[in-house]
Amino acid sequence: MCELLGMSANVPTDICFSFTGLMQRGGRTGPHKDGWGIAFYEGPGVRTFHDPNPSVDSRIAHLVREYPIKSHVVISHIRQANVGRVCLENTHPFSRELWGQAWSYAHNGQLDAGVFELSLGAYRPIGSTDSEYAFCWLLGKVREAFPDPPEDVREVALFIRRHCDRLRELGVFNMLLTDSRYLFVYCSTKLSWITRRAPFGRASLTDAEMVVDFCQETQPEDVVTVVATVPLTDDEVWTPMEPGEMALFHDGLKITL
Amino acid sequence: MCELLGMSANVPTDICFSFTGLMQRGGRTGPHKDGWGIAFYEGPGVRTFHDPNPSVDSRIAHLVREYPIKSHVVISHIRQANVGRVCLENTHPFSRELWGQAWSYAHNGQLDAGVFELSLGAYRPIGSTDSEYAFCWLLGKVREAFPDPPEDVREVALFIRRHCDRLRELGVFNMLLTDSRYLFVYCSTKLSWITRRAPFGRASLTDAEMVVDFCQETQPEDVVTVVATVPLTDDEVWTPMEPGEMALFHDGLKITL
Repeated sequence: MCELLGMSANVPTDICFSFTGLMQRGGRTGPHKDGWGIAFYEGPGVRTFHDPNPSVDSRIAHLVREYPIKSHVVISHIRQANVGRVCLENTHPFSRELWGQAWSYAHNGQLDAGVFELSLGAYRPIGSTDSEYAFCWLLGKVREAFPDPPEDVREVALFIRRHCDRLRELGVFNMLLTDSRYLFVYCSTKLSWITRRAPFGRASLTDAEMVVDFCQETQPEDVVTVVATVPLTDDEVWTPMEPGEMALFHDGLKITL
Repeated sequence: MCELLGMSANVPTDICFSFTGLMQRGGRTGPHKDGWGIAFYEGPGVRTFHDPNPSVDSRIAHLVREYPIKSHVVISHIRQANVGRVCLENTHPFSRELWGQAWSYAHNGQLDAGVFELSLGAYRPIGSTDSEYAFCWLLGKVREAFPDPPEDVREVALFIRRHCDRLRELGVFNMLLTDSRYLFVYCSTKLSWITRRAPFGRASLTDAEMVVDFCQETQPEDVVTVVATVPLTDDEVWTPMEPGEMALFHDGLKITL
């Protein structure tokens, strides 16, 4: 199993605090030592960092933790390998271009071998994981159904949900996906989210001795949603998602589907 | 104009020495201050670093310079913007998946507006540069002509050369391209390469006070080719390429086309 971390915000926001918590699970407070990766969006552009080494002692993770890259959408993943060996090409998040947008995706869970029988469209996997295969299948389906982006993103979200339902029949499929603007979140077993907005308070990480006072770090109009496999703080109220639930976020806000 | 740096090697090799030279041109010894990027291949997997800040004082560039990521293929680029504003999505190298391989590309030069009239296939640009547009066009043509990879890579190289010839009619088009195994190099105005192999000697960077004794750093069977816009060392013999020339490298060796 792996850990997921996602963010959607209405202003460029650094994720250092949440990332610090997540990284502890990569070999210290958690067993997810088989690599990690993160995608930071700045407008339509994306920076990705991938490292097949445990996050807790990765020099690149150290840089990401210390260096506040401000972003409006983030997807991160730390991995405990099940299908596919530990190597760079099997490290999430995976990315492909669709509609001139950089899509990124990360998966928590395991799918049975049946996933590899799904017939692929325009995208082929580079590595050997069930996760990347499922991503290629899913994005290929979106591309086939929507050669151009529809006016209402909810059409795409509902289409993706139906296809995630199908993947969930093959095993555990918790997923974060983004097209650079929207954050699509699908829950198969466990995912929770929290939206932070004014009045901001304090929060303490569960996995490290670190407290942040968001009052000091934010402007009153900021809206920031964080999604994680397991809540990262122990003194805030997170919303757990239901199995089979799809949530869609834009500029930090949840969009009703 | 921009600066290109490429590497092909038969063993995982770090590019810290050459990268140190290149980065000096990003705002210190050269005017290329509008961002930089690098793609490191480890087998079929790729790590990329992109930064729209000047390389000479980029914290991420500092990490890359100090942290020896060993790779068998590398493509790097520092940018002096002409077409397209300075932002993450306009920062080379650009990447797309074809045949289940991660292709990366960087361009030095400028193409006239006619490039935007070329009709695109499966790939669309994310940013607004002439460079990424040309890449999408070129890779779309490869995909159309070769739905699957041909047995002889030289067929692809010659196909790419013909299409690069067409791009060269639109302006300056020096290019590095890789499918993760082969390094395709096209020269429009200036590019030079050097193959280092036993007996190894010493070399001094032109742009920084740094000398390396490759004897100390290598094994006798290592073969490493470095390609750059302008030679990076001043005490070795680099081979300048001819306008319209395509060179193909694999495991550090030049393949005759």
